[in-house]
Parts: sequence; structure tokens; C-alpha cells
Amino acid sequence: VKKISIRFFVALIIGMSVIMSVNAQNQDSVQIRKFFEEEFNRGKSYPYLDYLCHDIGHRLSGSKQAEKAVQWTYQTMKNEGFDSVWLQEVKVPRWERGKKETAFIFDGDRKMPVKICALGGSIATSQNGIKAKVIEVNGIEELKKLDPEKVKGNIIFYNKQFDKQAMSAGHAYGGTVEQRSRGAIEASRLGAIGIVLRSLTHSLDTFPHTGAMNYNDSITKIPACAISTVHAEMLSTILKRNPDAKFYFQQNCKKFDDAISYNVIGEIKGSEKPDEIIIVGGHLDSWDLGQGAHDDGTGSVQCMEVLRLFKTCGIRPKRTIRTVLFMNEENGLRGGLKYAELSALNNEKHIAAIETDAGGFMPRFFGVSVDGKILDKISTWQPLLEPYGIQKITNGGGGADIGPLKKQGTVLIGFHPDSQRYFDYHHTDADTFDKVNKRELQFGVVTIAGLLYLLSEYGL
Amino acid sequence: VKKISIRFFVALIIGMSVIMSVNAQNQDSVQIRKFFEEEFNRGKSYPYLDYLCHDIGHRLSGSKQAEKAVQWTYQTMKNEGFDSVWLQEVKVPRWERGKKETAFIFDGDRKMPVKICALGGSIATSQNGIKAKVIEVNGIEELKKLDPEKVKGNIIFYNKQFDKQAMSAGHAYGGTVEQRSRGAIEASRLGAIGIVLRSLTHSLDTFPHTGAMNYNDSITKIPACAISTVHAEMLSTILKRNPDAKFYFQQNCKKFDDAISYNVIGEIKGSEKPDEIIIVGGHLDSWDLGQGAHDDGTGSVQCMEVLRLFKTCGIRPKRTIRTVLFMNEENGLRGGLKYAELSALNNEKHIAAIETDAGGFMPRFFGVSVDGKILDKISTWQPLLEPYGIQKITNGGGGADIGPLKKQGTVLIGFHPDSQRYFDYHHTDADTFDKVNKRELQFGVVTIAGLLYLLSEYGL
Repeated sequence: VKKISIRFFVALIIGMSVIMSVNAQNQDSVQIRKFFEEEFNRGKSYPYLDYLCHDIGHRLSGSKQAEKAVQWTYQTMKNEGFDSVWLQEVKVPRWERGKKETAFIFDGDRKMPVKICALGGSIATSQNGIKAKVIEVNGIEELKKLDPEKVKGNIIFYNKQFDKQAMSAGHAYGGTVEQRSRGAIEASRLGAIGIVLRSLTHSLDTFPHTGAMNYNDSITKIPACAISTVHAEMLSTILKRNPDAKFYFQQNCKKFDDAISYNVIGEIKGSEKPDEIIIVGGHLDSWDLGQGAHDDGTGSVQCMEVLRLFKTCGIRPKRTIRTVLFMNEENGLRGGLKYAELSALNNEKHIAAIETDAGGFMPRFFGVSVDGKILDKISTWQPLLEPYGIQKITNGGGGADIGPLKKQGTVLIGFHPDSQRYFDYHHTDADTFDKVNKRELQFGVVTIAGLLYLLSEYGL
Repeated sequence: VKKISIRFFVALIIGMSVIMSVNAQNQDSVQIRKFFEEEFNRGKSYPYLDYLCHDIGHRLSGSKQAEKAVQWTYQTMKNEGFDSVWLQEVKVPRWERGKKETAFIFDGDRKMPVKICALGGSIATSQNGIKAKVIEVNGIEELKKLDPEKVKGNIIFYNKQFDKQAMSAGHAYGGTVEQRSRGAIEASRLGAIGIVLRSLTHSLDTFPHTGAMNYNDSITKIPACAISTVHAEMLSTILKRNPDAKFYFQQNCKKFDDAISYNVIGEIKGSEKPDEIIIVGGHLDSWDLGQGAHDDGTGSVQCMEVLRLFKTCGIRPKRTIRTVLFMNEENGLRGGLKYAELSALNNEKHIAAIETDAGGFMPRFFGVSVDGKILDKISTWQPLLEPYGIQKITNGGGGADIGPLKKQGTVLIGFHPDSQRYFDYHHTDADTFDKVNKRELQFGVVTIAGLLYLLSEYGL
């Protein structure tokens, strides 16, 4: 009798926990559904993005538009009535493209204009531009094998392509971006006078893609530009036939002293554990081409909108939730570094950070910087987010801006929408509002708000 | 001793079957990877689509372009060297839009032009057009409650919107399409002289969306057009203020006698069970606006391409695989009906049919018309397709063209790419080649080829 009653008791406990857990999941599902209904019926993410793209436009760190974006997002979050909204001062690099670039291929008697743009941070050429023979290389490894005599006085043409077999476009980017970031240094080391980079995209089109590049103070600085993929193909074809073809480019960019700018932060205080902070972040700055729509206007407005959803739906989080619009992700990461520095200084406890900087496309998964029990715990929430597009929670994740929080033990989470179209627009004149599908953007908002809600309810 | 040896033997058998099953999955994964590598390095789906969109263009049943599309796809599959390629004669309806439509809203003294298009199958107005007061209704149910005296002599404006809360855009379409298909019949029954339909899309833009509509021979036929969503909003706003505002439209469409056209079919014979047939189908016809890119150029080229992948990768299927490019899905379904009719007549055994007619977007899932053991079997293949985008296999699926095979017991399978953008382009001038992302199209090809391969290897 005793044995049976113990068994019965155990079964009862198990049964009750199952019921309670199912009830909790139902409750959670109802709360997340509230976010969905608010977003799809009266959501502000799309009108926010409209304003950011059309009324402000692109917003490179230190520019007037970046300043305007800071003021507007600050005021907008103030108006939404979050518990606190504040600016966090950051010194940012300031670089300007100046007058539009020009470039030509000289193939014997023929002179063909091609589309280029200066890489971000590059020096200018002289007023007269530079003109030289072109040495094509398939990435930095191939460059390093060249005889310096062959390189000297010439222009290096980095033509390593995106890997067609990379499943995620981000991986293809990762496999080629070194040409952009270190290409000028390595080419100059061998005596080159400039570099031209095949634009970093799968797409075959006429948009040159800019992006950050670096110099090394002990090596001569040489001008660097990107050429559209269509014109990279043209240049490569010509060089196969005529290795003496020449490339000319002229650009007018300039670096200025650091400027003062800001991270913009909004917060709703936790009702039970206010000291446990969870942030959602995107970056407010963009490159100076297009409108910075997918990179990272969409992430910025998603972050503002998720806090608004909590407020409007009357959901008071148990832990503190905070939106951080980082400044200067594109060419310095000063905002991300400053945020982590001040957080450490103030002894803040960030239990988790979510970053959305992969475009406003349809959600597919969240990547998490931990495995084991914490990953298991987060994974049990996947069914709650699946209706809105999240098919899995995977190990491995984070983002540039939240990266510096890692040493404080914060769990880093990357939001991953479908990746295939991101690099069609990335850092180009094509990254404009019309490339964003309203509903895809909204589904992203709902999944991020949902995960934020679950983190704030249950902690880690 | 005897007991132990039996246990050992059982364990051995179980162990071996697990190993064999894992090996089979590995083998399958290698074969599907071959499709992927061929498609992403040397694939023809995108150039096929380029030709279909730019060299042929839209291709309404019975049109010269539809005939050209038949000849080109037939010749292309011939050139690829499939085992058999043939045409299957189908009589199709023939309807032409004629000279472009015009429409105006008359609001007191103001006359505002708006964008419309005739619905497919509609009659023309007179040369002078029709002009009348407008009665706005939120769908057919609301219309039926109206006093016929109020409707008589007026134009019915169907303004029921896509449900913003529908997760899949297809469900939103399903909830409103009745206005288009039966709207003219129901309005005429109450004495209306014409209908104007809010375009069937979530998107707020200036593209009117055409699509099939029906008449009933015992009820007066009245002209029917679609108005862009932007102008539907404008019309609705004006009517709230001025219920006496008038709508004018003029259109010139015409129905002709049925024309002769064809389903285009390509086949690779099965090596072990040639009598078990598996088809993949899309429809070759389109509406007469745009280029019929996503609807259903993408599906058509995917179907041609999957057979080419088998051939090029040297994979001989165990069962017979067949591509069917159906004619006349848009306004009659004659191709789908004819195919099933001849299949029954010839005692063909179709074990499964896959349809791709939901756009060339990133794959998300396959929907299957069966549950129980067969669904379980197909579901075990999901991990093999997941790298290419298939996150699940669900119960419930099929497609218009393969639907008529259902009564022969064929398992029907719908390919479901992400649905959010499909109705941004559907049946409009915006459905053009540039709206298709090459890699998204290619991922679709690989998942369909993969499923076709597994079906041909293992049957059902």
C-alpha cells in the first residue's frame, strides 16, 4: 500500500507539472499572439522605417543625418512613454566620400566607363586619379604568392567571388570580406598603388558595394575602391585577352577628426528582477549609399517597436528590457564598445542580448552563443515562435554590436532572417525602403518581441 | 546460453539495420548534394526563366506567346535528351483584354483617373463605358443583405481586404477570392450593372490585379474590373464623405472560340519500376500582365530543371519521373483535367504528383495530401532536405493542376516557398523577372529534385 501511494504521489506530481507547463505555454502563446495582433493591425515598424529612410536617409557616423536619426529615435521613444530614454555619448570616426568617383577601363584604344565607389575609410586619389596596369588575384592568399616586381606600380584587382555553394549568404561574405578589410595593406606591402575590389555579393548587377577597409600606419596608404560585379566580370574578361589593359580611377574621399555622436537607449523596468537586463540592439548608423534600409534601418525600427509592443499590449516584463540603437557599427564599432564599457563600469548585469542586423526578411532562426542546458531551455520556446517563422534555435550566434558584452558573461543571440537577398542590397544605392516587405519586417518584430518576452519571464 | 545468443542475434540485426539505414541516408544526402552542386554552379533554371520572361513574355492560354512557350519548352527538353518528350493536345478558352482600360472617380466636380484592369473572362463595357453610383460592400455576404432597390443600376465595389492576421498570404487570398470569382454573378442577380474589385493583395500599391471570374448563363453578364489597392482606399474614403460619388470604367475585352494548345511533357524512364510514375508540374500559361515570372514561370522552369539535374548528374531514377507543364491553369484548368483524363484512359499509375505554383521564393515546406504511415515515411526525409530550406513536411497539400489526379489515388504534394511576397506580384504588371532572386529559385529546384529522387528511390 505504501509503495502504491508513493507511486501515485509521484505520478500526480508529474501529471501536475505537465499540466502546469502546458498552461504556461498556452499563456505565453496568448501573450505573443497579442504582439502579433498589435503589430499586424496597428504596427509602427513600417512607418518608422519609412521615416528613417525617406525623411532622414542614409546616416554615416558623424554625418548630419546620423545626428538627425539620433534625435528622431530619441524623441520617438520618449513620445512612446518608455520608463527611461537616454543618449550615451560616443566618439565616432568621420569620413566623407566627397564628389562621386569615376573609373574607366582602357583596353587598347577603347575607354569604357565602369561603376565604382570608394571603400569606406579609403584615402582619395589625386585630382587626376591613378592609372596603371591591373593584376587580378583570387584573394589575398594568391596575392601573397606573387613576385613583388610584378605588383610594383600596378593596381591589384581582388576578384575572389562569393562561394556559390555557401548555404547562407553570410558565410559567402565571410569568405571574401578579408579582401576588403586587409586588401589595401597587403597590396601596398608589395608595392601596388591602388586596389579595386569585386563587390561582395552573389548578385550580378551594376551596383558597387562599399564597406569598411583598414590601413596599417607603417605601410603606405593606397586608395581602394569597389567595382560592381558586372564590371568586375568585364574587367576580368578583358585582362584574359589583353593583360596590358589599364584601369583608371579617381576619388575624393576624406577623413576628418572624430565627431561626437550617441547610442540611443530606451528601457522598460522589470517588475520582479529589475537588475537583470535583457537588451535588443540594431545599429542606427549606415553607409552613405542608398538609405540604409536593410542595413540596419530594419533592425533599428524592430528594436524600437518591440518595446512599444510591450507598452501598448500592457505587458509589464519581469526583468528589465532595453532597446539599444548602436552608433558606428559600420566603421568603428565605437557604440558597441562604449556600451559594454559603461555597462561594466556601472556593474550592470546583462543576462542576454539579442542583435538584429541581418535585414528585414522573413525570420528563420535564432542563433545562441551557448549550448548545454541554457540552449535546451531556449529551444523549448521554439514552438511558441514557430507560427511567426522561427524554425529552430541553434548553437552559435551573436552580432558585432553586442559582441563586447561577451566577456561579462552575457548570452548573445543573433536574429537570423532568411539570408539570400541581404547582399543584393548591402552597402549600395539599392538598399532602399522599397526593398523591404512590410509583412516580413513585421514577422521579425513579433519573433524578437516573443523571445524577449520569454527571456524576461523565465530568465536564463 | 541459448537466451543470450538470441538476444545477441537480435541486437546484431537491430544494429545492422540502424547502420544500413544511416548509410542509406548518407547515400541519399550525397545524391541530393550532387543536384545542389550542379544547380548552383551550372544551373539552367535562371537562364530558362530569363528566356521565358524576356524572349517570350506573358502567355495567356490561346495567345501567340503561349504557343511560343509550348514550342520552346518542348524543344528545350528535347535538346536536353530526356527519354521522351511529347505534347498533349488541350482545347483552351481564348480571351483577350484588347485596348487598355480607363477609369475615373467622379467626386462632385473632381474627376480622378484610377488604375484598373478587366478581370479575366469579363465582358467589355460599351465604347462609352459605364458610369454609375458606387455601393461598397465588404464581400459577398454583405452584398446579399442589401436591398436590391439600392443595388439596381449601380456599380458594386467589393472592398473586402486581405486578412492582415493570416499567417500565410495564400490563406488571405482564399478568404477574399470569392469576390472575384462569383462577384459579378451575385451583383448582377441584384441588378448591378458592373463590379469593381479591390485588388487581391496585402500590398498597398498602384498595380491592379487581374484573375479569373465567372458568369452564370442564366444571369445577365456585367463587366468586372479590379482596382489597385491605393485607389480602392481612395474610392472608399471618398464614398464615406460623398455617397453620391460616381465610378466610370471602360474596357474592351473579348472572348473568342476555344483554341488548340498543349501540355508539354518530358520523361525519364524508371530503371526498376517504370510503371510507377511520379510527376512534377507547374503551369506554362500566365495572365496577360507582366511576364508571368513568379506565376508560374518559376514553377515551369523548376520542373524542366529537375529532370535535367537527374540526367546531368547521371542519376537514373528507379521509378519513372515526368515533368508536366500544364496549359491553362489560370482560366480553365483544361490542361490539368486533360492530363488526368488521359492518364486514367491509359491506365497509368501515378504514385505521387508534386506541384510548384507558389512562386520562386525560398523553400519552407512540402504539404502532402495524406497522413498516417505515408506522411510519416515522407517526414523521415525532411532532414535530407533541411539544408536547402525545407523545415517540415505537413499534412494537407496539392495544387490546382494535379488536383484532378486525386481520384486515381495519387498522393498530391504542394511545394511551399515562403508566401509573403507572392501576392505583391500575382497577376499584375509587377510580376517580372527582376522580382525573382536567382538563389531562392535554385534552392527550390534542389528541394523539389531531392524529394523527387527520394520518391523514385523508395516509392510510397
